Amino acid sequence: MMAAVTAPLAGERVLLETALRDAIPRTGLVRHYETVADYPRRGGKRMRPMLCLAACRLYGGASADALPAAVALELFHNAFLVHDDVEDDSTRRRGLPTMHKALGTARAINVGDALSALAVVSVAKGVRCWPAEVAGAVSIEFAHLLQRTTEGQATELAWIAEDHYDLDDGDYLALVREKTCWYSTVHPLRIGALIGSRGRADIDRLNDFGFYLGAVFQIHDDIENLQAGPDYDKDALGDILEGKRTLPLLHLLRTASPSDRSLALRVIGPHGSGAPAERTATVRELMDRYGSIEYARHFVDALSGLALAEFRRLFNSFPASEALEFLFTLVTDLGKRTRRYSRPARVVPA
Amino acid sequence: MMAAVTAPLAGERVLLETALRDAIPRTGLVRHYETVADYPRRGGKRMRPMLCLAACRLYGGASADALPAAVALELFHNAFLVHDDVEDDSTRRRGLPTMHKALGTARAINVGDALSALAVVSVAKGVRCWPAEVAGAVSIEFAHLLQRTTEGQATELAWIAEDHYDLDDGDYLALVREKTCWYSTVHPLRIGALIGSRGRADIDRLNDFGFYLGAVFQIHDDIENLQAGPDYDKDALGDILEGKRTLPLLHLLRTASPSDRSLALRVIGPHGSGAPAERTATVRELMDRYGSIEYARHFVDALSGLALAEFRRLFNSFPASEALEFLFTLVTDLGKRTRRYSRPARVVPA
Repeated sequence: MMAAVTAPLAGERVLLETALRDAIPRTGLVRHYETVADYPRRGGKRMRPMLCLAACRLYGGASADALPAAVALELFHNAFLVHDDVEDDSTRRRGLPTMHKALGTARAINVGDALSALAVVSVAKGVRCWPAEVAGAVSIEFAHLLQRTTEGQATELAWIAEDHYDLDDGDYLALVREKTCWYSTVHPLRIGALIGSRGRADIDRLNDFGFYLGAVFQIHDDIENLQAGPDYDKDALGDILEGKRTLPLLHLLRTASPSDRSLALRVIGPHGSGAPAERTATVRELMDRYGSIEYARHFVDALSGLALAEFRRLFNSFPASEALEFLFTLVTDLGKRTRRYSRPARVVPA
Repeated sequence: MMAAVTAPLAGERVLLETALRDAIPRTGLVRHYETVADYPRRGGKRMRPMLCLAACRLYGGASADALPAAVALELFHNAFLVHDDVEDDSTRRRGLPTMHKALGTARAINVGDALSALAVVSVAKGVRCWPAEVAGAVSIEFAHLLQRTTEGQATELAWIAEDHYDLDDGDYLALVREKTCWYSTVHPLRIGALIGSRGRADIDRLNDFGFYLGAVFQIHDDIENLQAGPDYDKDALGDILEGKRTLPLLHLLRTASPSDRSLALRVIGPHGSGAPAERTATVRELMDRYGSIEYARHFVDALSGLALAEFRRLFNSFPASEALEFLFTLVTDLGKRTRRYSRPARVVPA
């Protein structure tokens, strides 16, 4: 649908790509910065920076004002990806080997730190330009974003390290809020609105919308990992082997017969036993039998509805604009995303 | 000597320890933050934050103004230590197991990221309080600090990964400037002076002093690792096994006979062959034979002299103060530090 017409904020997308490229040095330590540019160059949806630019426009700002923050959001995101891939020992990212598989753990850790450093450089450039009140508030937003994301990551890694599976949907949503929503949706919206309104917008009003949007995004990611088609560009079914507590997995563990539950617990996670392909096939079969993916799909429908309702509540009185259309398209497209995967899944061994 | 009288800036030290403790949350994710607090609690000289507080006082500021920056410097330092220990696969830090040996690589990476996040929180608190000009300038200083440190780390890791040993003292000093001096001495001084003078000091004048001081500090560290006594609290001789290009090692490779050079190259670094204790003993014996440690000691004497000369040039016209005394003591104590190790070394196997 989006391909048929000029996508909303197409101009911002060009601005962003240029600024992102310019944020990574091309002189000096050329080989180092080639590796630093690797993940950002692999593409991606740029959802986080685009949310920030859209919010800035919606609240009356010029896109250029929010560009340093948008670039920083994308660089931090890529920093998290590099470190996450080491932490999960993933093998593929956007169709290519993960950083640590290509360069080794030591250099991958440093590449992640270098991406964070360049993100901080971009924020600092903003701090020099934004009005003092805005600069202080945006600094606090970024600090909160980093703190919460590492807290979420700490919780998930502790669950995995300690084989903790006694979790309900509330635990899952609390985790997703920490590890995904703050940095992916809530703060991008808040930061954009802060800059666009020069500190006058009531940005707390955006939190629920951001949370629903981020949760929809994460659950889709979880479902996609389970139902990966041939064009999937990460480790298909990797979440099962890494021990990720996804909504379908928690549903399975909650609803399965005692013997099926024991079977699942035996094969999932980094301490699971058996050949990887067999382990993932076992869990996928159980999930099909218990309707766990279908459950997650219904769950995501409900969250999409909540996101749409929040969108209306927040922006009903806003005049039509490209930024508003961008946001609306994002909300409705995300809502429709699982439909693409609703056919019975072909299980692809990792 | 320092123990006989009240150390200069003893009050600042107390302020700093309190602020550092308060910068790490004690509620919420209690277990996570226990691991985050681990390295900072292990102690250390607090050289970086104390340099910042001293510079702030010297340039007319109150210590409290620089406290958020000082805390951030110590937290970033600890973040680097956690990640460095993973990258070097070190086993001991301040007398205890390194973070990744205790918690595994995945969680150690995240603990490092969490320490960085808390550092960013501390900077953001400062940005809200400092005058706008100072806030912008300090943000840029921290950004530069992070970028340069990861660049230095990238260079060293590339040398190690690629078995690159064809390096001279100039390469060594350039590396030390990047990986150590910016974050350990140059930026702490610059940031303190910026805050203390409310942006009026010519902070570029501090660069050479900071560089000499940081290089002295790093070369001492390298020598200590080679001549570790029984109270040494890191991996004694670990630098040899990790393939660190230290000044004594480069001297050895430059001056040794072709056969001794080949012998050294065979056993040093992560790709070296043989039992660790034998490898380190071989290199230490060669260093003794070629006077490599003695060479480094003379080198450090020269740098200490340069640091002292810069100290005089910079601060000759400053009135006597506790902050000036602190700096002078630091410069002269650092200069004397190798003397403690000047007896023929006892080789301690790793």
